[in-house]
Amino acid sequence: MAYKDEQLNEEKVFKDPVHRYIHVRDRVIWDLIATPEFQRLRRIKQLGTTNLTFHGAEHSRFNHSLGVYEIVRRIIYNFKDRAHWNNDERLLCLCAALLHDLGHGPFSHSFEKVFKLDHEYFTQQIILGDTYVHGILERVRPGFAQDVADVIGKTYSDKLVVSLISSQIDADRMDYLQRDAYFTGVSYGHFDMERILRVMRPTEDQVVIKSSGMHAVEDYIMSRYQMYWQVYFHPVTRSAEVILSKILHRAKDLYENNYEFKLKPTHFLSFFSGDVSLAEYLKLDEGIVHYYFQLWQEEDDFILRDLCERFINRRLFKYVEFNPNKQMNEWMKLHKLFQEIGIDPEYYLVVDSSSDLPYDFYRPGEEEERLPIHLLMPGGGLKELSRHSDIVESISGKKRTDHKLYFPKDILENIEDQKKAKEIKEILYGQGDVFDAK
Amino acid sequence: MAYKDEQLNEEKVFKDPVHRYIHVRDRVIWDLIATPEFQRLRRIKQLGTTNLTFHGAEHSRFNHSLGVYEIVRRIIYNFKDRAHWNNDERLLCLCAALLHDLGHGPFSHSFEKVFKLDHEYFTQQIILGDTYVHGILERVRPGFAQDVADVIGKTYSDKLVVSLISSQIDADRMDYLQRDAYFTGVSYGHFDMERILRVMRPTEDQVVIKSSGMHAVEDYIMSRYQMYWQVYFHPVTRSAEVILSKILHRAKDLYENNYEFKLKPTHFLSFFSGDVSLAEYLKLDEGIVHYYFQLWQEEDDFILRDLCERFINRRLFKYVEFNPNKQMNEWMKLHKLFQEIGIDPEYYLVVDSSSDLPYDFYRPGEEEERLPIHLLMPGGGLKELSRHSDIVESISGKKRTDHKLYFPKDILENIEDQKKAKEIKEILYGQGDVFDAK
Amino acid sequence: MAYKDEQLNEEKVFKDPVHRYIHVRDRVIWDLIATPEFQRLRRIKQLGTTNLTFHGAEHSRFNHSLGVYEIVRRIIYNFKDRAHWNNDERLLCLCAALLHDLGHGPFSHSFEKVFKLDHEYFTQQIILGDTYVHGILERVRPGFAQDVADVIGKTYSDKLVVSLISSQIDADRMDYLQRDAYFTGVSYGHFDMERILRVMRPTEDQVVIKSSGMHAVEDYIMSRYQMYWQVYFHPVTRSAEVILSKILHRAKDLYENNYEFKLKPTHFLSFFSGDVSLAEYLKLDEGIVHYYFQLWQEEDDFILRDLCERFINRRLFKYVEFNPNKQMNEWMKLHKLFQEIGIDPEYYLVVDSSSDLPYDFYRPGEEEERLPIHLLMPGGGLKELSRHSDIVESISGKKRTDHKLYFPKDILENIEDQKKAKEIKEILYGQGDVFDAK
Amino acid sequence: MAYKDEQLNEEKVFKDPVHRYIHVRDRVIWDLIATPEFQRLRRIKQLGTTNLTFHGAEHSRFNHSLGVYEIVRRIIYNFKDRAHWNNDERLLCLCAALLHDLGHGPFSHSFEKVFKLDHEYFTQQIILGDTYVHGILERVRPGFAQDVADVIGKTYSDKLVVSLISSQIDADRMDYLQRDAYFTGVSYGHFDMERILRVMRPTEDQVVIKSSGMHAVEDYIMSRYQMYWQVYFHPVTRSAEVILSKILHRAKDLYENNYEFKLKPTHFLSFFSGDVSLAEYLKLDEGIVHYYFQLWQEEDDFILRDLCERFINRRLFKYVEFNPNKQMNEWMKLHKLFQEIGIDPEYYLVVDSSSDLPYDFYRPGEEEERLPIHLLMPGGGLKELSRHSDIVESISGKKRTDHKLYFPKDILENIEDQKKAKEIKEILYGQGDVFDAK
Repeated sequence: MAYKDEQLNEEKVFKDPVHRYIHVRDRVIWDLIATPEFQRLRRIKQLGTTNLTFHGAEHSRFNHSLGVYEIVRRIIYNFKDRAHWNNDERLLCLCAALLHDLGHGPFSHSFEKVFKLDHEYFTQQIILGDTYVHGILERVRPGFAQDVADVIGKTYSDKLVVSLISSQIDADRMDYLQRDAYFTGVSYGHFDMERILRVMRPTEDQVVIKSSGMHAVEDYIMSRYQMYWQVYFHPVTRSAEVILSKILHRAKDLYENNYEFKLKPTHFLSFFSGDVSLAEYLKLDEGIVHYYFQLWQEEDDFILRDLCERFINRRLFKYVEFNPNKQMNEWMKLHKLFQEIGIDPEYYLVVDSSSDLPYDFYRPGEEEERLPIHLLMPGGGLKELSRHSDIVESISGKKRTDHKLYFPKDILENIEDQKKAKEIKEILYGQGDVFDAK
Repeated sequence: MAYKDEQLNEEKVFKDPVHRYIHVRDRVIWDLIATPEFQRLRRIKQLGTTNLTFHGAEHSRFNHSLGVYEIVRRIIYNFKDRAHWNNDERLLCLCAALLHDLGHGPFSHSFEKVFKLDHEYFTQQIILGDTYVHGILERVRPGFAQDVADVIGKTYSDKLVVSLISSQIDADRMDYLQRDAYFTGVSYGHFDMERILRVMRPTEDQVVIKSSGMHAVEDYIMSRYQMYWQVYFHPVTRSAEVILSKILHRAKDLYENNYEFKLKPTHFLSFFSGDVSLAEYLKLDEGIVHYYFQLWQEEDDFILRDLCERFINRRLFKYVEFNPNKQMNEWMKLHKLFQEIGIDPEYYLVVDSSSDLPYDFYRPGEEEERLPIHLLMPGGGLKELSRHSDIVESISGKKRTDHKLYFPKDILENIEDQKKAKEIKEILYGQGDVFDAK
Repeated sequence: MAYKDEQLNEEKVFKDPVHRYIHVRDRVIWDLIATPEFQRLRRIKQLGTTNLTFHGAEHSRFNHSLGVYEIVRRIIYNFKDRAHWNNDERLLCLCAALLHDLGHGPFSHSFEKVFKLDHEYFTQQIILGDTYVHGILERVRPGFAQDVADVIGKTYSDKLVVSLISSQIDADRMDYLQRDAYFTGVSYGHFDMERILRVMRPTEDQVVIKSSGMHAVEDYIMSRYQMYWQVYFHPVTRSAEVILSKILHRAKDLYENNYEFKLKPTHFLSFFSGDVSLAEYLKLDEGIVHYYFQLWQEEDDFILRDLCERFINRRLFKYVEFNPNKQMNEWMKLHKLFQEIGIDPEYYLVVDSSSDLPYDFYRPGEEEERLPIHLLMPGGGLKELSRHSDIVESISGKKRTDHKLYFPKDILENIEDQKKAKEIKEILYGQGDVFDAK
Repeated sequence: MAYKDEQLNEEKVFKDPVHRYIHVRDRVIWDLIATPEFQRLRRIKQLGTTNLTFHGAEHSRFNHSLGVYEIVRRIIYNFKDRAHWNNDERLLCLCAALLHDLGHGPFSHSFEKVFKLDHEYFTQQIILGDTYVHGILERVRPGFAQDVADVIGKTYSDKLVVSLISSQIDADRMDYLQRDAYFTGVSYGHFDMERILRVMRPTEDQVVIKSSGMHAVEDYIMSRYQMYWQVYFHPVTRSAEVILSKILHRAKDLYENNYEFKLKPTHFLSFFSGDVSLAEYLKLDEGIVHYYFQLWQEEDDFILRDLCERFINRRLFKYVEFNPNKQMNEWMKLHKLFQEIGIDPEYYLVVDSSSDLPYDFYRPGEEEERLPIHLLMPGGGLKELSRHSDIVESISGKKRTDHKLYFPKDILENIEDQKKAKEIKEILYGQGDVFDAK
């Protein structure tokens, strides 16, 4: 029997708190899960620094990847009488679902921004490079790895397959909304996925939704909106992100200025120099990052030391609301004052902005457009969701951006120059409340 | 206002998936949570290697510690009309609940066994030593830290206070059963805690349960039993524990034999030499351990390298049932055969045993006895649970022990000496099934 | 001790699937629950005919009334440091919450429409009339019953008290959304009530919401919207409502035309004649209504017999979408055709319309306006919700109406006059799908 | 296409709070659900008087019957590769599951006891008699109705089919435990059904359980035990049952003694005379029973009037523990004293006994034995559950019986003969607490 048709003697299951069970029948899937590259995802949190706000959110990308696989498995099962896929196409969907996040590193958002990396590039590298994953995929048939990479890269010719993994209502999003809601414990993020799966219909180039399921989709859109503002863009999480980014910036900066680290930051060197090989990339997980941050707490450089200590011990920056259109003047004054009292504003006075589009959201770091949602009308035609749903229409395209100004309140409390301290505080707090973490 | 009476301006809450919200009103509690020593618990998993079996079980001891605090807070609230505690005693209970696991290190079970450590000793050290936690506790009043340490150490004079934190039905167990069930996703571990809290009554020297709540307690006992056999003693988890212990053994052994590590294992030196200071202990978290294990994958020593690679990539040992009373002969034969084919049985042929007592369970590593559960009868007298509940009586004191023999099936598949390989396999597999992970 | 201050020896609890436990401490509440007038609510379903669509929705108004009481109890508990209510005011809120639906009869919506009744009038009658409930309320103090009636009637002077029971986000709505979601099993209707209760603040004349809780309120508004369209206005439920109303119409009509019923409809006589005494009203529950409908299945009048048989055995009308602005012509043609083939269009060709306002919904039968929701801003001022929430703003005031045309498809299948049957079907089905129940 | 192979155009679903969705594909099942005989189950509560204790428990047998069908549907789906059933056998299982409770009348337990009826007899009658259900079943093929009746009657030749519907771990029990837990809101009754379904294996004459699933079965057994003592045998529910039985007794007795009822109890006559036709049986549902009980509140006979008023308004009897082995003397004294003060002890001094066997429970009214549970061992052999599970072994066969003595405390408070009242109270309350409802 060809490897691609090989089934496990008995179906294996993983107990999953979100989908109850993850079912595996195909030898290929079982073998992919067992690879070091996939196991590595256990050491990378799904939500980066969110657990500093919602302590339950300690789940890994391993967790989420299994979930996406399971949802696609169920969709394909539902489609079995409708989409005439052969076993090759079925496996292609399942593998792409399982591996779609394979290239994520620790704290992807910050790392990607500071070091100009792209996790999708590394996902492709792992699938196509000299890896265990690649070996297994190519055993299905020569060229299979490339097809999986193409599906994930959205360049695969069968757009229906692509839309299972990346669209406005794909398996990726359906898993992470529910999973992140489960682990944070928030009451948002729930929607009737079983119903959505039941009303999904395959068409030639995308998955569409029977119009009778419109309300379930509306509910999903609203869940997404709530999760963005209540969880993903939570200002305390963003405070930790700000500090994390600034640590990476500082370390890079020091490196470029020939600063002598007490222990050579071996794992970071290629990141600093901007030439990261696949092998080096795979070595970096969140444990390693924590190891360095802990060491750096004892570095001579005050800024690096202080920021690392803040990150490790969760001594975060406070924040005030900030309106860049109206408050640039204040910001410039603050910038100057910070410099005068010897606090580098580059690291200690940081504006962070988050935006979403309630229908047509983007996850942090995802810039490309995703397909809109289409409804399959009783007559048989398609209709774009916001043209049929009043609720979605009313929020569609309404982008909302939130800006906050982050700063170390504790340091400001201990400035010697009382006059300048007062001036800073008047500008900062004059405009309203200072918000603590929590 | 004295520090001990200081309340936060507004109650703070943590969103918790198990108890919905964790409520904090006291400044002391808020400050303790913010200490580096307490934040460190975020970097130590509640269930060690269990996430290699149940992927959802990635929650930390930080998580659990907040939960125990919250349960005690609710118990005290329920007791407020009954137990005439003053604010000092109230804070004592809350602090002891919050801090009871403070001395846990990474993978406590294995570390404690191999390096002869005791997490309770370190809990005491952190509370009494030169730490942020200590400073905050002593601000309540001089001697308060010692009292907290005594409650956790079960030597405090007021046994009622002690029984909230350590008894057969204490806040610790009620939290971890529910929390571990939630994160693993298993359907065991649920019981009606709200009802148990309602029927708890303080007496002079312990918390007792109104007899009308007996069934809820039976349900709790059964949950515990199921969680032990289904989750805590899961053979795959134990396989990872076996490998972990053997890594630590091997590293210590190499160190003692003056093996030259490629990178000096700074964080481990004091563990190897058996003289661990508090500062060194606090530095070791799971990220650091993973850092070393990852490095050691590239060591020259085969055993260390192989075991680390297995642990990191989840290439676990397989196992067969093992009966030490009847199969010592087979075991000795295997031992000899392993030596003959050049596989060190010390590291690659390992018996692991787990036992429980359905009523009167012990968590791994806890040796001391806990108080039995007493029911408060309608007339007013007390009755030990198993004398009133048929179900508990019928299982009480019935200890069950499970032995398994772990070995690397993959290595056995590739032995050159075909004859010996056959002999080994006959002994191992002759007795029944070999079990894979999952 | 005065009755009003009397506490039960021990708190009593009811196990409730939605709020876990309903807690009762006050003797007054305990005694009110035990009255025949309150126990009668067990025999009236919360959602009338909805269980013919969602089989789980068999819960009674007794159920819901306890839930509303419990929510108000929790709100008052949260307010205890803020609103300086005395025990009299506390009991007033609790009693009004418990009793607010006391005057509901069986299938209120249809009965009220057909017989021109008003359940709020009967609620007042029960509270103020010669009843057990009245006796208990007056034992609190003379005039207390009138105050309770005034709170429910929204004429009570303290508007804060009124707003707990009747506003856009009152205890009534918070209970029924969650309860109806629980019993139907739909995934809508969930929102974080615990959070909403935490951010509720009493002001002089209403309950307001701290602006930090805005997202939880948005989520509540969306739940409401989904419940309306997915559950309350479900077309199959409305089909049963149509038939029910027509049964009542027919029976009244027959009575007025001196039709001789096989068994004198004793319980209905005063309803037919339009002069219902309190005692007669209280005797009518859903069991009694079913008794008569079952008897009427054997009446000589075809229409009464047929409609009752349909209702009892769930042989409902089918429906098509209907646009009264564009399709009045078709409707008139159908009306004529129905008459020609001997099917009375008055009973067998029925337009039913449902409307909602996503923000500012009305429950069936409630015509009066409810207070909008106000947010308490950080500075201290109030802001109407839709002026702060983009989501709510975008849907605010957008009324949506849905019209459907109901008819007995089974009868149309068996018309002798083939030509007319064809004509009817062309008009009905030409415009799209005919929808079955489910 | 033959009726038996007819599939619905599109799968229909019912939203179910316990199993999420009930799926229907077969035209036969759809048509059976639509019959008047099956719709009648909506008017019969699953748990009789339990809603007087747990107000959520208002769900009907319609609800439960769909659930049992759904579980069997899932089992068969899991078996599809293992049990070589044809479509006829598949439909047989599904129909038997759906219809297994079809013969239940209102408050079956009491009605069956008082009027010597047997719901299984009526189930057979409905399936085999001149009914809509019979017509549909016979359209599958001649003789199919008889086969369905045989499966339900446990006389069908294929014992595997029978064991799906009636055994110690059948679909009936798995549904009602979960459903009753859901609607009452208790935290018992949960077990991992999905896992149990996964480890079920068909053998020639029964369904067995793979031994790896033993713990899930233990959990199910414990759920059952808890539900029996916490819900099904709840003393308050039994108080209502006692009163209900006594009403039926009294009415029958009055009838036999030619008492003249104000309104002729038409629906009850055949029950009184002991010759109930199918048509008469089907007419009696809980609405009808309530109608008569309400009327009887105005009867001349004090006992009938009083008991009906108690039942309708939930003025239940109180109870004390009673030990028939030791307290027969007291009981006889009480009996005599009741007679002396003019309270008929036949109706007002009632001993009620409930018993269970933790493994090998019987539902009220089910006397016959059910098959024990067998485990499928790794080697392939079968082993009876209690021989492998320590927990089950330890409770197996331990029958527990609970006796309570019920009486109207309110009446005893108002006895004129103070001396005798004192005597009665001393006997009753001397032995301990009197328990209120709740």
